[in-house]
This record gives sequence, structure tokens and C-alpha cells, in this order.
Amino acid sequence: MISSRLATRGSIASGRATAQLLRSFNTSALRPTFVVVQHVQLAPASQRHFSSSESPKIQKFFEEKETELVRRTPAAWPHPEFNEDQMNAVTVAHRETQTASDKAALIAVKILRWNLDVVTGYTHKQGAMTEEKYMIRNVFLESVAGVPGMVAGMIRHLNSMRRMKRDNGWIESLLEESYNERMHLLTFLKISKPGPFMRLMVLGAQGIWCNALFFAYLISPRTVHRFVGYLEEEAVVTYTRQLEDLDAGRLPKWEKLQAPDIAIDYWNMPEGHRTMRDLLLYIRADESKHREVNHTLGNLNQKEDPNPYASEYKDLSKPHPSKDLAHPKPTGWERHEII
Amino acid sequence: MISSRLATRGSIASGRATAQLLRSFNTSALRPTFVVVQHVQLAPASQRHFSSSESPKIQKFFEEKETELVRRTPAAWPHPEFNEDQMNAVTVAHRETQTASDKAALIAVKILRWNLDVVTGYTHKQGAMTEEKYMIRNVFLESVAGVPGMVAGMIRHLNSMRRMKRDNGWIESLLEESYNERMHLLTFLKISKPGPFMRLMVLGAQGIWCNALFFAYLISPRTVHRFVGYLEEEAVVTYTRQLEDLDAGRLPKWEKLQAPDIAIDYWNMPEGHRTMRDLLLYIRADESKHREVNHTLGNLNQKEDPNPYASEYKDLSKPHPSKDLAHPKPTGWERHEII
Ligand SMILES: [Fe+2]
Ligand SMILES: [Fe+2]
Ligand SMILES: [Fe+2]
Ligand SMILES: [Fe+2]
Repeated sequence: MISSRLATRGSIASGRATAQLLRSFNTSALRPTFVVVQHVQLAPASQRHFSSSESPKIQKFFEEKETELVRRTPAAWPHPEFNEDQMNAVTVAHRETQTASDKAALIAVKILRWNLDVVTGYTHKQGAMTEEKYMIRNVFLESVAGVPGMVAGMIRHLNSMRRMKRDNGWIESLLEESYNERMHLLTFLKISKPGPFMRLMVLGAQGIWCNALFFAYLISPRTVHRFVGYLEEEAVVTYTRQLEDLDAGRLPKWEKLQAPDIAIDYWNMPEGHRTMRDLLLYIRADESKHREVNHTLGNLNQKEDPNPYASEYKDLSKPHPSKDLAHPKPTGWERHEII
Repeated sequence: MISSRLATRGSIASGRATAQLLRSFNTSALRPTFVVVQHVQLAPASQRHFSSSESPKIQKFFEEKETELVRRTPAAWPHPEFNEDQMNAVTVAHRETQTASDKAALIAVKILRWNLDVVTGYTHKQGAMTEEKYMIRNVFLESVAGVPGMVAGMIRHLNSMRRMKRDNGWIESLLEESYNERMHLLTFLKISKPGPFMRLMVLGAQGIWCNALFFAYLISPRTVHRFVGYLEEEAVVTYTRQLEDLDAGRLPKWEKLQAPDIAIDYWNMPEGHRTMRDLLLYIRADESKHREVNHTLGNLNQKEDPNPYASEYKDLSKPHPSKDLAHPKPTGWERHEII
């Protein structure tokens, strides 16, 4: 992990290291947009390696475009309805490993998680996490969370055309997941603007992460879905902790914080339920859904089974997989239950 | 172009050439699924380099999955309604080049088109094209047509997360386009099953094409949209010729051919309008839409403008870009008309 290597070195701010880092990125790093990072003044190694300074350039690009003729651009995938009871019922959960591939996926998640904790200065110690620290973690996490669904969707699309067979609805859910994660990121960016170093981290992580997932999905899609299932277990843990800290009064700045417009729009948040706390409830529920979807996909025949989340069921009276929170199944549906 | 090189050589059937070809593919070629091509018995060089033999393996994978519990998996993006008058009004059109980037895009399309004509044995001479020859061309074309939208969508998704700014709806239309092209392919595959050599061609073309588009879109998205716009101009020409040949009685086998179920489902084809001719009308109309969409996107600011096809307009009484055929604009909308 590039991130852990960075965190354990002292003099990461040197021009040489930055240049080396840049060379190891994917080609897009070569484009003029990112040349700006070479002039970045980094914080001393003893401090956090991120900053939350406002970048006017981000601000400029970020606003939803209203032009002379266009009023708005609605969400590509409208968000399913979640009600508050359902969202409160979301819990931390863990699917026991059953196969060697499950174990490999879990170990990979543990290693990533440990690295991320070091880099973002995360600790379980009560009260050690501030609003800013949580937000750094959230922005970084969400900026990588949108990658697996897009990569998996693209590979399945190319597979379908090359092998000349149907995909049976998987691509749709995978792309929708990546869109949902991108909306999480854009929402957090409305609350906290990352500084140049954070942007550099995201750039580096994306290059490595994207390629790693691409090859992993070619080799074993089942393992990748299990891996994402375990990642999302951790995401639910993270957002549950934030909710607990908020309720215990340890995150006072968030107590009166309102959800940004982009979030109210996307989740269709009802009036009177538009606080930071509500926002965290929605996002945690989304993560629990990704957890369920990916654990379920990891249980299926990758080439022949239809996507249970894009299918019409014969017997609608029995519980079945759905895009909303109607029938939650934190550890995923087993194949015999749904196919 | 790998395809043209192949076509101009005599002894393409040798094991050495096949092995060389395999090595030049992307990594997925290394997976066991494709090892089968090494045992292929190819036609003599004087004949067409494709066959339409049925493969039981394709057939097995191809059917829509109905399982014990699942009834069906509906389309990821429901197709917009087209009426017959609108579809008959679709015409061949050409957008004049205005910039150097336009010219580069047009030249690239001309070169590709020339290569494809050689390989698929296409000729303008009246009556030279049979149903089988058209179908070989269509299957090959559609198997590569689904790539640009997916690649562009993925790059814009990654850009949005890395640059931490909204995409304003472009990704949605690009992914939907790639889905629509994949549905064209799956529909043609219901009518004509490609033989192993054709599948090998598709595999090779996809590897090269996918990478070329990836880097091209990183370097100049505007040029890629213009390029796809010109490609779609050619697609409209091709399907218009097929309709003309069909109406002139030169394609007798298609006269009584019914559209497959997958097509009736996807385009929601009304009863009494489910022939091969109707199918070609729908597909040509789709291509005319891609032509318009990509020429339009090629006219916009790639980073800041909202996607005109996913936007709500302030003044609905004036013609504006839409997903259906309500306001056709074969050469694309100019930026000042819509932003
Ligand atoms: Fe997320
Ligand atoms: Fe997630
Ligand atoms: Fe097409
Ligand atoms: Fe097309």
C-alpha cells in the first residue's frame, strides 16, 4: 500500500519523493490538471498528512450546473426509499469465512483496514476521533469505494460482448453501486474540502486500486465480491461508531450540522430529517445494502445466475432480495434461497 | 489493424499465427475459456473468414435465465418509445469537419471503415451482399460498438472521484449507450450464431480497441465523441443500405424473418410490427441517436457542461435534446443552442 509506506516515512515532503510517486501513478497523472501537486507545501510528518483547506478550484467545479437553458440534471439512478425504522435497524454484522477464497478476502480487508487506520490516524479509543478526523477518513474511503462496482461492471460488459452471452442483470447493480458511492463522496465534499495532499493520496490510491481490482476481478470475481462484502462490513462499523460518538456528545460540531442540498435531493430526505445524523443513517444503510449485495453475489455462479437484485420473483409473498431495506440480510442470501 | 493484416495474408490458419495472435491479446485471453480457438479448423483463405455455425456452448449460455424462483430480469435501462414515422424519418447525414480534431476523427473512421469492409467482404455493388454477409458485418460491428460508451463512462466516473467534482450526468448516457449497443449484439446473435473464428476476431478486436479508446479518451474526450459521432454516421449508412436491399427484394431470407423475443421485449415492439425490417428500423434509429448524442457531446465543454440528454429544460416548449426521437438533430446540437 502506497499509503502506509508514506505514513511510515519521515521526509515525504521532499520534491524527489513526490516526483517518484507521480511516476508510479497511472497515465492520467501525467495530465496538466495534477501538475499542481508539485508545488504543495506539506505538513510536518508529526502532524496529520491531510488538510481541510478550501480550494477555490474545487468549489468552482463542484456546484450543480444551472445554465441559461438547463434547470437541473437529476440522479442517474434514483435512490430507493428507506424509512427511519429500517435505517435504525441496520446493525454491524460479520459473515463467517467458509472457503479459502473467503479467507483470502477477509485477510486482504484486514490488511487494508490496518493501513488505512495508520494513515488516517484512526483509533478506537473513545473521544480520540474528532469531526475533522472522521471526515478525512470518510472522504478517503468514499473516494476509493466507487471503484470496485465500476471495474466489475465494465469487465462483465466486455465479457458479455466477447463471450456473446447475456449478463442477466449483474452490470446494472454494480454500476448503480459505484454511482451510490460517488454520491457519498460528493456529499462529504460539500461538508469538508480536502487539501492538496489528500487529493494526491486519492490520486495515488485510485491508480493502484483500480488496476488491482481489474486483475483480481478477471482472476476471481467471486473473491472480489466477498472482499467488497467484508469491506462494507467495515464501512458499517465505521458509520455506526460515528453515530454512537455523535449521540454521546463527542462530536458537538455535527450536532447542529444540516445535510447539504445534494444529499437532500439524492436521498429525498424528508423535512425535519435533514441533519448530519440523518445523513449518516442513510449512508450507513447504503453500506449495509452493498454488504448484502456483494456477499450475495459472492455466493452465486458468476457466469450463469441472474442478478437477484434486478430480477422479478415468481412468489412475491416470500421475502426476496430487493434494492430497498424491505428484507435485510446482512450476511447475504445463500444461492438456494434465491435461484 | 489486426483484422486487415489477417485478411491480406494467405496462411492465417497456421498454428503459429494463431499462437502469435493469442499472445498479442489482453490478459483475459489467457483464461481457459478461449483456449478452444487453438483447435479451430479455418476456412480456406479464398472464402469468407467467418462462419455462422451454431455453438451449443453459446446457445446454452444465451437463454434468458428463468430459475425456480426468478421469473425474469428486466432491461437495465428501459428503451425510450420510438414511433414508426419517427423511425422512417431517420436519414443518412454528415457533419462537416470544423477543427483539426474533427478531421483526425473523420480520418480514423475512414481508415477503420476501409479495413472493416475488406475483412467482412463488404461492397457497395448492388446485390453483392447476402443476408449472411450483412449479419457477419453487423455482429462484428455491434461487438465493438459497446466499448466506447463503457470506457468513457468509467473514465469520467474515476475523474469525478479523483478531481472531486460532479460529472453533471454524462456518465449515465454513456453507459446507457453501451448497454443499447450490447442489446443490438445480443439481438443479432439470436438470428445468427458466429463461428469460432469470428469469436476470435471479436476477442482480438476488443483487446486492441478497448485500450486504444481508453488512452484516446484520457488525451482528448472531445475527439473521441466526434469520432464516435462519425462512426455512427457510418452505422446509419449500413442499416439504411440493408433496409434498401430488403425493400428491393435482394434479401429474400429476411422477408419473412421475425424479430427474436429479446428484441420484442427490449424495444417493446408492437404486435404486427415485429419483423426483421422493423428490427432494422429500431436499430438504425438507435444509431442515429448515438450519432446525435456523440456529435453533441463533442461540441461541449467536457469538464463543465451538463449532459443535455440527462437534463431538465427550463423552457419545455422549445425543441431540446431528448432520449427519444422527438427532436432529431443528425449533426448534433451546437453548444449555444442548449447550454
Ligand atoms: Fe460509501
Ligand atoms: Fe460502500
Ligand atoms: Fe449498434
Ligand atoms: Fe451505434
